[in-house]
Amino acid sequence: MSKPDRLKARLPRGFVDRGPAELAATGRMLDAIRRVYESYGFEALETPLVEYTDALGKFLPDQDRPNEGVFSFQDDDEQWLSLRYDLTAPLARHVAENFDALPKPYRSYRAGWVFRNEKPGPGRFRQFMQFDADTVGAGSVAADAEICMMAADTLEAVGIKRGDYVIKVNNRKVLDGVMEAIGLGGDENAGRRLTVLRALDKYDRLGSTGVRQLLGRGRTDESGDHTLGAGLTDDQANKLLMYVTAGTPLDTVQIDLLDISTDNDFIEHEVDGEKYAAVFESDRTIDFLRNLFDHEGYQSGLSELETIAGLSKACGYGTRRIRIDPSVVRGLEYYTGPVYEAELTFQVPNEQGQPVRYGSVGGGGRYDGLVGRFRGEVVPATGFSIGVSRLFAALQAIKSPIVTGAKPRPLVVVTAMDQDQVARYQRLLAELRSLKDEAGEPLLRAEMYLGAGKFGAQMKYADRRGAVCAIIQGSSERDAEGGPQVIVKDLIEGAAAAAAIKTNAEWKAARPAQFAVPEAEMAAKVREVLARHA
Amino acid sequence: MSKPDRLKARLPRGFVDRGPAELAATGRMLDAIRRVYESYGFEALETPLVEYTDALGKFLPDQDRPNEGVFSFQDDDEQWLSLRYDLTAPLARHVAENFDALPKPYRSYRAGWVFRNEKPGPGRFRQFMQFDADTVGAGSVAADAEICMMAADTLEAVGIKRGDYVIKVNNRKVLDGVMEAIGLGGDENAGRRLTVLRALDKYDRLGSTGVRQLLGRGRTDESGDHTLGAGLTDDQANKLLMYVTAGTPLDTVQIDLLDISTDNDFIEHEVDGEKYAAVFESDRTIDFLRNLFDHEGYQSGLSELETIAGLSKACGYGTRRIRIDPSVVRGLEYYTGPVYEAELTFQVPNEQGQPVRYGSVGGGGRYDGLVGRFRGEVVPATGFSIGVSRLFAALQAIKSPIVTGAKPRPLVVVTAMDQDQVARYQRLLAELRSLKDEAGEPLLRAEMYLGAGKFGAQMKYADRRGAVCAIIQGSSERDAEGGPQVIVKDLIEGAAAAAAIKTNAEWKAARPAQFAVPEAEMAAKVREVLARHA
Repeated sequence: MSKPDRLKARLPRGFVDRGPAELAATGRMLDAIRRVYESYGFEALETPLVEYTDALGKFLPDQDRPNEGVFSFQDDDEQWLSLRYDLTAPLARHVAENFDALPKPYRSYRAGWVFRNEKPGPGRFRQFMQFDADTVGAGSVAADAEICMMAADTLEAVGIKRGDYVIKVNNRKVLDGVMEAIGLGGDENAGRRLTVLRALDKYDRLGSTGVRQLLGRGRTDESGDHTLGAGLTDDQANKLLMYVTAGTPLDTVQIDLLDISTDNDFIEHEVDGEKYAAVFESDRTIDFLRNLFDHEGYQSGLSELETIAGLSKACGYGTRRIRIDPSVVRGLEYYTGPVYEAELTFQVPNEQGQPVRYGSVGGGGRYDGLVGRFRGEVVPATGFSIGVSRLFAALQAIKSPIVTGAKPRPLVVVTAMDQDQVARYQRLLAELRSLKDEAGEPLLRAEMYLGAGKFGAQMKYADRRGAVCAIIQGSSERDAEGGPQVIVKDLIEGAAAAAAIKTNAEWKAARPAQFAVPEAEMAAKVREVLARHA
Repeated sequence: MSKPDRLKARLPRGFVDRGPAELAATGRMLDAIRRVYESYGFEALETPLVEYTDALGKFLPDQDRPNEGVFSFQDDDEQWLSLRYDLTAPLARHVAENFDALPKPYRSYRAGWVFRNEKPGPGRFRQFMQFDADTVGAGSVAADAEICMMAADTLEAVGIKRGDYVIKVNNRKVLDGVMEAIGLGGDENAGRRLTVLRALDKYDRLGSTGVRQLLGRGRTDESGDHTLGAGLTDDQANKLLMYVTAGTPLDTVQIDLLDISTDNDFIEHEVDGEKYAAVFESDRTIDFLRNLFDHEGYQSGLSELETIAGLSKACGYGTRRIRIDPSVVRGLEYYTGPVYEAELTFQVPNEQGQPVRYGSVGGGGRYDGLVGRFRGEVVPATGFSIGVSRLFAALQAIKSPIVTGAKPRPLVVVTAMDQDQVARYQRLLAELRSLKDEAGEPLLRAEMYLGAGKFGAQMKYADRRGAVCAIIQGSSERDAEGGPQVIVKDLIEGAAAAAAIKTNAEWKAARPAQFAVPEAEMAAKVREVLARHA
């Protein structure tokens, strides 16, 4: 085949392959999440990867190719189909389509791939996995509180320590109320509202000074990039700053002054080697917010937050775990009530090597209108979505046992010394594969070398595959006096011994870490070698 | 919202949702398959659902919309992307892209969704799951034999009895040789070859008479539909019939005459209440085929089949499990050597209620050219693909414990009698969720009723959710003398008792199967109820 005729083997941009170690570790993480969700009575559901484009809320009648942000294609009956871009829209379709058959409230969880037709970048993929849990048909904020508590339990179940995460809660009604109260209500202010919300969302990173600039004339960052401001008056900006700072710690005290054993309403941090505790208290945050704006929706949103904070506290989830934070915005248009963000608070190095907070690994909120698009009546719903890759990367960063502990069963390679003895090797393999551990699970993986290489290539193959042990049977072993034998070679010890041996002749004389045993004793010898390296 | 504005909630044609029972059962089946594949040293791999269309071999330069059979869409750089339609083409791309980094031979397994842009029908979906295992870089038919043996082990691991399945093996070289030997070689006969292969493929169903018609002038079936024949001469057709019948049993004897305990080279079947055994012997099949055509490729293909049969037999896989069958065709163009078909031989009722053989649940073969499209050199490869839904349906039909045994953990519902006591109910829930079974796994799932319904609605909800047990705490229990109590209600026994009670008054007096206990004894009482219905 000439070179220009040859196809190029390449992944499409923004898509990745995943190998055995990552798959096994991710599988363990997903199992741990599933176990928590199921213990709360959430039920598994799986919807297809393809939906009608209009059911995803992405269809605009004046676009004949609705490809903005989603991958779409036309069916043979001219209807537009799309790859789902989240797991919420398909759930709304499923509930509406099966409304009478489902118990209400309906708790479900779903794990699956979603797709974004966007420019890929480092850590930004066009196919990625989400793991969602939703309660449909419960209008009470007790459902939101339950999801927040379950999110906290989930993060601990996958190995994130208490104090290393926080579920921050806000309310879309509160945010909408703030906007109206400062005179940014109405359709004509939609653009400015977006600029303001984006500014508030950056409070964590930029602090008061930066946010004030973004609310006013704009801000120029260290690299010289200028972001246009919302052009608010000083009075408007002041009010917003008072609003957004209500979620910061009310006190910062030296940690020795706190009774750590009973009080979990604080976040530990270190300044110049001294340990400090930032003390949060949702009740006081809400009291403070109460006095800021006299607006009906705003006040009713605060009452919902008060209920969520009260329920969480009563169930033992202090503000260290679940906390009211007025700076949480959450971008999605469809939220109608409480919104939540699961944030990891420990630090990791960024691309420049500076320590930064790990940040969000998931979030969600109440979306009472989404199912209603199909039914012509409000169907209350609330849910939470975990970014699986993002959480997985966090668990790798903190070396959570749930990902580091996913070791494959040990591998044994049977070498193929004589091609006409393959059937004999296969019988040895069958015996090895039938071995069980104490739990009755397969003890090992066993494979025969199937290539055309000679002994040296076969041993290299065994090393490359990470085999613990090799089984070798040439004619001298097969025809041994007293019946057929096999050589059981301990590859780990062998490698260590080989490193200490200087010459080939020396190696030939010593042949370290290999044992000739009768075929009938192969299993026992293999068990011994595996136990040595368990 | 007015009716015409309302979106219709519907699944796209050919796509399905799947609920908790099917997901749990499928998960167990996939785990069992995975365990076998891993014990053979196959490694997990996952590729994305989207590939460049040309990498799938689906791109024809004169088509600007390559949507034939696959779902395709154009990227913003004008390149065509497609949803994968199998797991083999993406593997070839992956191996070619990572050739130097992979051990060779490279054994991998992959489970995932594939898509077909075809007309959906009963049991024909446009998104379905395949579970593949492939060995790349091994040219020896020992690799094909290994895959056939692993396929047999897999079917037994998911609960299919020996004798209820067979792995049928043929060879594309043999089929190609036959075509050339009867004068149907060359590009100009491609169409007729296809007609002939389709006819041979129907030998199982139509027998000699039907196949002879299809090879000659054509065949009219019971419904009056006419299928055009290949127009072969009698001589050509006779040779093909001799060829294809070589795979039928060489003897059929009454089963009592066989030594079943040692001889597994037969298939059991019943005729008029008498048990018969159809005796197969791959050696004799091959001997018979040897004499039919004197064609080099044909004879070399037979030698490969002989090796596979010999290896299988030596490893204890008789013709009851792995059998040479010259009628196996396998449609895909890319096969270059041995091809295999995993067939379930037990009978199930068809749509008309007549008993029919369950048929194929998977297949595969050798495809030495597929990786080479990217590399400009032949890279030998062979693999096997399981149709997951089809195998799952078979396991449901035979009630395999692997699917029927996937019971969820028992569910306990805590009723919400007083909305202001939600925090208290949440504490009861937390206690219930913390209970473990002997293996240290969660004992149960526990949920609170989160809707707005009164007591009756809450009990109905618990029934609908399949709860085993309900926890009830109203003000009289909360304020009970001697400290707060809960009512633990056994819903299964309660339902049975309620059926026996005639009047509401009688029920109120008896209140069967419910026990008031102090809060501290709730866990013990719940354990007792769950144990009763375990």
